[in-house]
Amino acid sequence: METKKTNIILFSGDYDKAMAAFIIANGAAAYDHEVTIFATFWGLNAFRKDQPIDVKKGFLEKMFGKMMPRGADKMGLSNMNFAGMGPKMIKHVMKKHNAMPLPDLIGMAKELDVKLVACTMTMDLLGLHKEELLEGIEYAGVAAYLAGAEEGQVNLFI
Amino acid sequence: METKKTNIILFSGDYDKAMAAFIIANGAAAYDHEVTIFATFWGLNAFRKDQPIDVKKGFLEKMFGKMMPRGADKMGLSNMNFAGMGPKMIKHVMKKHNAMPLPDLIGMAKELDVKLVACTMTMDLLGLHKEELLEGIEYAGVAAYLAGAEEGQVNLFI
Amino acid sequence: METKKTNIILFSGDYDKAMAAFIIANGAAAYDHEVTIFATFWGLNAFRKDQPIDVKKGFLEKMFGKMMPRGADKMGLSNMNFAGMGPKMIKHVMKKHNAMPLPDLIGMAKELDVKLVACTMTMDLLGLHKEELLEGIEYAGVAAYLAGAEEGQVNLFI
Repeated sequence: METKKTNIILFSGDYDKAMAAFIIANGAAAYDHEVTIFATFWGLNAFRKDQPIDVKKGFLEKMFGKMMPRGADKMGLSNMNFAGMGPKMIKHVMKKHNAMPLPDLIGMAKELDVKLVACTMTMDLLGLHKEELLEGIEYAGVAAYLAGAEEGQVNLFI
Repeated sequence: METKKTNIILFSGDYDKAMAAFIIANGAAAYDHEVTIFATFWGLNAFRKDQPIDVKKGFLEKMFGKMMPRGADKMGLSNMNFAGMGPKMIKHVMKKHNAMPLPDLIGMAKELDVKLVACTMTMDLLGLHKEELLEGIEYAGVAAYLAGAEEGQVNLFI
Repeated sequence: METKKTNIILFSGDYDKAMAAFIIANGAAAYDHEVTIFATFWGLNAFRKDQPIDVKKGFLEKMFGKMMPRGADKMGLSNMNFAGMGPKMIKHVMKKHNAMPLPDLIGMAKELDVKLVACTMTMDLLGLHKEELLEGIEYAGVAAYLAGAEEGQVNLFI
């Protein structure tokens, strides 16, 4: 039997949407799908290291770098963000219900061999360097995404 | 000929996005697709009854319950919400053009045998109980979604 | 070999999301996919001409027409819009990196024979007339979208 494939474009930089992406990805990997998460635009923030990394940047790239959340744990909610209160509430109920926080979901994705790909074109635009992203990320463009997606059973844009 | 399948994840709690989801779902059902709408996170609000239901909840769950819109008719717009004016404008022009409001689209979906599924994991997180959701909803997790989606022709995340 | 098909619903009226839609569409067209972008709700704004067109409208339709961005170049960002500063920043870094601005991406899509379809039902709702949209657009409803999507390999909702 042919291996099924799941390809998720993670465009959003929202904590809750990224959670949904990784829960679906990890579920699909557990069902033996070949799974790829292709992060682009604000979704790249989920792959950022949580500490500032010393790289040379232009002025606008520096500004983007400062204004965007540094890593999964600092991302806001798509809804009811309430100046940061929303994520705290969600994380609190998640803890209570033993649900995995986003950084753990990303760690689990790696263990399950979910392929994490960062879109090089939007990294350029937002001034993000490889040194600033997590270890174990692959780098590619829209052509690589399409080559996977045209063979995929479950293709989602999140 | 094999029955085609449409699987829509309704993540968004926006009136206009939920409208799009149900218009596509009802269209696909009219074309003899097997259709499932899997509501998760804020999308669950479309399945809420419009009256408060007396269930026992913790503090945060109570807060979420109060802050989130109680049912399809009370949801806001993803764009130009204008503190609630946007939905009124949209509903006004919809009436003028004889377009179905969201609660009617949901009713029609049920008549067309669109399977409405509530994500149990996010119900837990947001503190939503079965008693608070519409009749005729099914309850499942990401595994059930994936089992359907991997056989689907049209898979969308809304 | 059968021609692969990519079908993108462009629901969002955000500059960055529309960019993503057209970059994927143009990429897929370059890989010989048959590509359709079906614009609905706020996504229709990407197809608007940038000048006011004299058409007869009711009061609410006039208001929608004024409040919504007139064409691709005037759309805001989904994230970090900062009252219009965000798009300026993005366009600045795009220029620096020789990335195509959205109106050029749309022009390229036309050259690559990407089928641009405007959803007639939501045009009615938002009071948009054919005269207000770009040349070369086709007009259809959800049935036409579904007929394409059920044969598609890459179906996305953006």
